[in-house]
Formats: sequence, structure tokens, C-alpha cells
Amino acid sequence: MKVLPLLSITLLLSIGCSKNMSNKMEQASTFPKGEKVTNLNFIGTVYVHMIATSDTIYNINMGNVTFEPGARTNWHYHPGGQILMITEGTGYYQEKGSPIRWMRKGDVIKCPHNVEHWHGASPKTGVTHLAIGTNTNLGAAVWLRPVTNEEYNTPPEK
Amino acid sequence: MKVLPLLSITLLLSIGCSKNMSNKMEQASTFPKGEKVTNLNFIGTVYVHMIATSDTIYNINMGNVTFEPGARTNWHYHPGGQILMITEGTGYYQEKGSPIRWMRKGDVIKCPHNVEHWHGASPKTGVTHLAIGTNTNLGAAVWLRPVTNEEYNTPPEK
Repeated sequence: MKVLPLLSITLLLSIGCSKNMSNKMEQASTFPKGEKVTNLNFIGTVYVHMIATSDTIYNINMGNVTFEPGARTNWHYHPGGQILMITEGTGYYQEKGSPIRWMRKGDVIKCPHNVEHWHGASPKTGVTHLAIGTNTNLGAAVWLRPVTNEEYNTPPEK
Repeated sequence: MKVLPLLSITLLLSIGCSKNMSNKMEQASTFPKGEKVTNLNFIGTVYVHMIATSDTIYNINMGNVTFEPGARTNWHYHPGGQILMITEGTGYYQEKGSPIRWMRKGDVIKCPHNVEHWHGASPKTGVTHLAIGTNTNLGAAVWLRPVTNEEYNTPPEK
């Protein structure tokens, strides 16, 4: 039996559910591209497919997230941490107080709990990553302000 | 700072570490194929690459596991559960007391905690899956007896 606590439902609502869309990219990818995000926690065009929603048994959630060029999350943090696994394209990842770093296919990035950060595509190339939310019993992502163009356009360090 | 508890080390040892091998399949895949398993918890040819080892911060581990045709795990169970994400090929999954079921690319299978099960390739086709070990603070996988040929050769139900 799967128990869906409030935080899973909040997460599902926060990514803006709509009818499933299919396209050529979905055919080639292992997991569906999912739904176009319609909320204000993202800038640009972003798709999310939840592979597994949070529950009290496994204590994680898993999503497949695709950012079109220029798209990114707002600044946010995860009370229980998150692990990103880059599966396609190239993107940006930044923790507060550190330079932007590249995300490339095959990279695995651990986002420490309660550390403010953002992630998304690079300006000219989209990116797709699996996102594993860990220790989801500690609460859903806390969303903050958008990433400014000045912040986004600062060149990555590595 | 990452803290590696005993169970991570046990897991790493249990998959039989050796020098990294590269081949054509690794070039095409998102994550490395990894090391050939040399222990007795598997039958046939199996490769494992640990994407993330267990730690006390994220409380999960993640591996990329490839089974050549006919290869499979022994019967085993996970005190904290496991989630399999099939990324290539077709394989078998069976829980104790239930028929074998197919695993196909894009499938996501939740292995409930403490439920005896096994997984692997089908007889004629290999399979690759990501394996997310959840609630790893509850302990490492508990390994049991091999899957017999009679068990393995019983046709899948669905």
C-alpha cells in the first residue's frame, strides 16, 4: 500500500498538472518528458514527469525534468536534499555563494539539504536530468525568488 | 562532508571492485557500465557501477546494473526497499509467491522492504536498470540462495 502524504500532493500540484503530451523526444527517451510546468517557480519552458511521488515507505521522490535553452528553476532549497543525474544536454547548477558550474550528461550532483541553489539549461542548449528528492519526510522544496538575468548570464567557472 | 557507514562499504565489497572497464556500450549510455561482478550473489555476467554510495545524509544509494542474457541476482531482500528504473533491454522480476513479470525499458518497479525477490535479464535479451536503494540506514541487502533454472525458466505471467 502506498501512502501519499501532503507533501507529495503539494509537489504534484506545484508542477502544474495537465494532460500528458507526447512528442518525438519522448519516443527516444527512457522516461516520458511529461507535463509543461505552469507555475511561477520556474523561468522559461520546463517539462516534468514524476516517476515516483513521495511516500512514507521509500521516503524519496523521482522526477524527469527537461529545461529548454535559457529555462531554469527559481532559487530554492530542499530540507531533505536532492540528487540530480544528468541524462541529456548541458545545463547550469549554482549554489548560493559559489560560481555557476556546468551540468553535463552523466554528471551526478548532490544538492545538500537546506542549501539555496538553482539549476537549469544553458543559454543555447537544453538539459534533461533525473531529480531524486531524498529524505522527503523532512518536507517539500522551499521556493524563493527567480534567478535574475544578471545571475544567469555570469559565465560558469568550470 | 560525506560519511560512509559500514553498509556502504559492505555493498561496495559485495559487488567485487576491480579496474574500470570501458567498451562501446559505455560510450552510448548515460552512466558507465562499471565493473564485472565477481561474487556469488549473482548468476551469469553482471556489471555494476555505483553512481552514489550510501551515506547518512541522503540515505539512499544508486547503481547502474547490467545483466547479460540469462544473468540474474540471487533471491534477496532490502530492509529499506529498492526502486528499479529500467533503461535498456528486457528482463525478469519476481517476488516470492508471485509469478515472474517482465521488466521493460521505462518501467519503474518498487521492491517493498523485506520482500524476497530477484531480478535479471530474460534468457535471450540483456537488461540494464538503475537501482535506487532507499532507507539505507535500515541496512544492506540480505542475500539468499540462487534462483534455480526451474524457477528462472518458468514463463513470465505478464
